[in-house]
Amino acid sequence: MAVFHMRECIRKTKQGIPLTAEEIRQLVAGVTAAEPIPDYQLSAWLMAVCLSGMTDAETAELTMAMRDSGTVMHWDLPGAVADKHSTGGVGDKTTLILAPIAAACGIYMPKMSGRGLGHTGGTIDKLESIPGFSTALAPDRFLKQVREIGFAVAMQTGDLAPADKKLYALRDVTETVDSIPLICASIMSKKLATGADHILLDVKVGSGAFMKNDTDAAELARLMLAAAKADRRHCTAVLTDMDRPLGMCIGNALEVREAIEVLAGDSDSELGQFCITLAAELLAMTGMGSAAQCREAAQNAVTEGTALERFAQMIAAQGGDPRVTEDPSRLPQARCSRILTAGQRGWIAGMDSEQIGRASVLLGAGRMTKADSIDPAAGIVLHAKYGDAVSDDSPLLTMYAAKESQLDEAEQMLRQAVTIAEAQPAPRPLIRQTYSTGE
Amino acid sequence: MAVFHMRECIRKTKQGIPLTAEEIRQLVAGVTAAEPIPDYQLSAWLMAVCLSGMTDAETAELTMAMRDSGTVMHWDLPGAVADKHSTGGVGDKTTLILAPIAAACGIYMPKMSGRGLGHTGGTIDKLESIPGFSTALAPDRFLKQVREIGFAVAMQTGDLAPADKKLYALRDVTETVDSIPLICASIMSKKLATGADHILLDVKVGSGAFMKNDTDAAELARLMLAAAKADRRHCTAVLTDMDRPLGMCIGNALEVREAIEVLAGDSDSELGQFCITLAAELLAMTGMGSAAQCREAAQNAVTEGTALERFAQMIAAQGGDPRVTEDPSRLPQARCSRILTAGQRGWIAGMDSEQIGRASVLLGAGRMTKADSIDPAAGIVLHAKYGDAVSDDSPLLTMYAAKESQLDEAEQMLRQAVTIAEAQPAPRPLIRQTYSTGE
Repeated sequence: MAVFHMRECIRKTKQGIPLTAEEIRQLVAGVTAAEPIPDYQLSAWLMAVCLSGMTDAETAELTMAMRDSGTVMHWDLPGAVADKHSTGGVGDKTTLILAPIAAACGIYMPKMSGRGLGHTGGTIDKLESIPGFSTALAPDRFLKQVREIGFAVAMQTGDLAPADKKLYALRDVTETVDSIPLICASIMSKKLATGADHILLDVKVGSGAFMKNDTDAAELARLMLAAAKADRRHCTAVLTDMDRPLGMCIGNALEVREAIEVLAGDSDSELGQFCITLAAELLAMTGMGSAAQCREAAQNAVTEGTALERFAQMIAAQGGDPRVTEDPSRLPQARCSRILTAGQRGWIAGMDSEQIGRASVLLGAGRMTKADSIDPAAGIVLHAKYGDAVSDDSPLLTMYAAKESQLDEAEQMLRQAVTIAEAQPAPRPLIRQTYSTGE
Repeated sequence: MAVFHMRECIRKTKQGIPLTAEEIRQLVAGVTAAEPIPDYQLSAWLMAVCLSGMTDAETAELTMAMRDSGTVMHWDLPGAVADKHSTGGVGDKTTLILAPIAAACGIYMPKMSGRGLGHTGGTIDKLESIPGFSTALAPDRFLKQVREIGFAVAMQTGDLAPADKKLYALRDVTETVDSIPLICASIMSKKLATGADHILLDVKVGSGAFMKNDTDAAELARLMLAAAKADRRHCTAVLTDMDRPLGMCIGNALEVREAIEVLAGDSDSELGQFCITLAAELLAMTGMGSAAQCREAAQNAVTEGTALERFAQMIAAQGGDPRVTEDPSRLPQARCSRILTAGQRGWIAGMDSEQIGRASVLLGAGRMTKADSIDPAAGIVLHAKYGDAVSDDSPLLTMYAAKESQLDEAEQMLRQAVTIAEAQPAPRPLIRQTYSTGE
């Protein structure tokens, strides 16, 4: 192995000279080594990546090297193993709906998830709103559950891509988070380490998302697909609109309830159709048949109740109360609530999801720092969505919180988040674009 | 004072948004604070400066803030106080000639200098080749000497611009040295802290210099002048050619000897005329008269021997043997030497000063790391210079070292450093450009 010079790597990246595969491997090895590369050199390099960029080949190599910095999982299951990742949004309960549908269709989904931070929620927080539910699963129990029920949701461990964990902590305090190659490597190193052969990526784009515009989102999708392809995985990336929240509920128990409603048959809603489409993409990736066949299979899993059944089994296996799937009123209920009305006539022309997400944090549904605790019952239920006509006294949304003062705080922000126009706005498709690695 | 957020500063600089004067002040204060800004944030910011740049106003403010991070000196002397700085070159003994001339003309020069590193030499190392010479002067003795003799040369203390010292150490290991605004702030913070009212800057440009091209050198000169002007100092910057060594000697005792030869009357040489020109610029800056009058005064200081006399007084005052000024053979002599001949007929069309500097390090005249020791007698004497005609057996240069093996090592490098062409090359002026703050 050649002698490694971190200064040489910094200089090359700064000047736009691509690093060799070996340099990238050595750099990543140096992140978690017993005598690690000093943080001040790593942060200088990270800033150079942000400003001078990286080639596709470097990004793929960085992704693989970070994947290999910890445990790389391998599955021995009698069917296709799939994973799904969302870049984070407001009201995004897709996993709660998609995973049971996929499981009901014979796909195995060993799902590693995280908690929410800032204005975006996390799947772990949502599931923990179910009384008794636990995401701390020992590896053998996790595997057993995936084999028997088709899916399990566990807290992501520090053993997956530890180099990413270290680099992310440094990026977070040095303003080097917003580099698309670094975001790609961070997401995909963990996805590839999780060992699924089929990966569905939901790249959110808009005010409430990390990617604020289509160009950046498409670039991220392109890089993630290239990294998946380099590691011989199937991958489909869907660019979805985050200029409005996904679905009608924002908040942990509220989102579980909405997911149950979709799984219980309410799949004609925009959220329901979105999840059916994503499930069909996943099934198609695993070679389950034509697009029409896959869509039908996914739809049937909802109509016939097999997906909801899987969801109940998963909840029971992870210590939660499965009766919530039949009676969502068993989920935590907020003490206070307040309805906001439109106050004017017109059409809903904007629902700023970042502001709505921030308002939900004020209500107690999210955390601003990792140390904050959350209120599982808090959140927002929308009664009107983008493009709907409203009159003066139409209810716009209901806020839920533990204290009246939180409702006061959030109300102001929510009023600003919703734009009511005199003319009907142009329709916006939820799915903006779909990319795939192909066969 | 507003709350300071280092992350906000990093973000702004990265995005090309200028920092406010207060932000820069707080950032620099944070460098040397008891609870300093973490190195990883400073290095990310430094890389952002390298790649996204800084405005002139930011550069001037950074310079002042760094100046104020330690002692700012004030002089109470009965005449103009001047300083001179060279950005570093090969064979650059200008200070040894310029300071005695200026002193002989009534200018006070309290000079803080450093050691050499890499292929460029340092004034301190050169003077220390004089038997007994010391550059460790207590402040009161330093002031007394400046008052009585007109100049003194002391080792720069850590008390001058300590924020620069800390930032430079970080830049050195994070490939963030080559930012022109950062170079300006580093040089000028120390110059302004030294307290001179008149500053002469010798910006070297070419292969042996830090600035490799005229554009960068002119930009550095422009920024340094702006910083001096913002602090109400007179400043003149001279861009000088470093695509060849300055003068005929490279090496510590050898350069002292060459300086003595110029001061003893050999001022018609290119080096001699260069020093007279720079001295005249300095005298003009202090308001000593017209350009012609200043040039005449400087020339007279050499012709009449008053400059050499000052040099001898300075050496004696700092513990050195002043007899070297009359008998340079009292300087250390190398044990081994070897003459290189041209080996072909033609004209000297290139003298790569970086390679010649590196060869002098191999001979023992310089150090690659701060811990290396140097051989005061080692070095190179050129017998032909750029543009000279040579024949087969013309001596090109003589190498001096302690061991034959060092001569062997350096010979190869020196042969490559000298280009002999069949046609006479175009003349190259030593001084490429002069800039001044004016009145």
